Amino acid sequence: MTTNPTTLTATPGTPFADTVREFDATPEQVFRAQTDPDLVAHWLGPRKLEMTVLEYDVRPGGSYRYIPRDPASGTEYRFRGVFHTVEKSVLIIQTFEWESASGQVSLESSRFEDLGGRTRLIGHSVFPSVEARDAMVDNGMERGIVDSMNRLDELIAVHAG
Amino acid sequence: MTTNPTTLTATPGTPFADTVREFDATPEQVFRAQTDPDLVAHWLGPRKLEMTVLEYDVRPGGSYRYIPRDPASGTEYRFRGVFHTVEKSVLIIQTFEWESASGQVSLESSRFEDLGGRTRLIGHSVFPSVEARDAMVDNGMERGIVDSMNRLDELIAVHAG
Repeated sequence: MTTNPTTLTATPGTPFADTVREFDATPEQVFRAQTDPDLVAHWLGPRKLEMTVLEYDVRPGGSYRYIPRDPASGTEYRFRGVFHTVEKSVLIIQTFEWESASGQVSLESSRFEDLGGRTRLIGHSVFPSVEARDAMVDNGMERGIVDSMNRLDELIAVHAG
Repeated sequence: MTTNPTTLTATPGTPFADTVREFDATPEQVFRAQTDPDLVAHWLGPRKLEMTVLEYDVRPGGSYRYIPRDPASGTEYRFRGVFHTVEKSVLIIQTFEWESASGQVSLESSRFEDLGGRTRLIGHSVFPSVEARDAMVDNGMERGIVDSMNRLDELIAVHAG
């Protein structure tokens, strides 16, 4: 089985970051794996980090909070946000903050496009400035997203099997 | 008494909108008038609309929802969002959606800068696209903001008196 590619586009001079990833699974299967609090720690974040999910309450007004930890150095990273829109298997809109870049909150949308048994997941992030977007890209955004998408794919394969 | 000016800057080709407004009151006074659910309906929105505030829960993860109504035409406008950050008298970060432009959610920050007994309120909004920002400006964003800031100022004068 080949791995579907994940593309991250961060056009210079804009505060946007766009991701596209296809899955060989239905929007319902992708949405479930992505939002079930018991499953989130198994796909979210870079592979080399250990993930603790403190809260993942996927509903409008719900909050999430998680702490990836580098087992080699012991360094912890703290992320948090709130959900603005949750339309099951269709659309999620949420805020996103890396607490080390405090105040630099971004807004992310994830659209689940139905390809007829397959799914195209379309992510769009907007940052409060071009510089904040550039800093997040420089701090390993692509690694985190690519690993997350590949791990999500593997998790869906297990749960759909 | 002269009215302090409100400036709105929407630089062409960017998804940002920036507002600056000074108040002859402390950050604590401005923050209180801006966030007290009992006071919000008295300052929020254009003067010519009647405001119904259904919810205004100013805390991280809290939601707000309000409906300005044009008494002449009966037209209602529905707005909603969630609060991501609430630092008393310092910083508010919240999502913002006009439900008629559904899915076009923006993220707003409001910083309360202490000028020593006076306050500079600095607003920064970022939209998911340049087009979404332009559409909001075209739909009367400036009128809503200028009226809101002037009415907030009048309310503070009453409550500080």
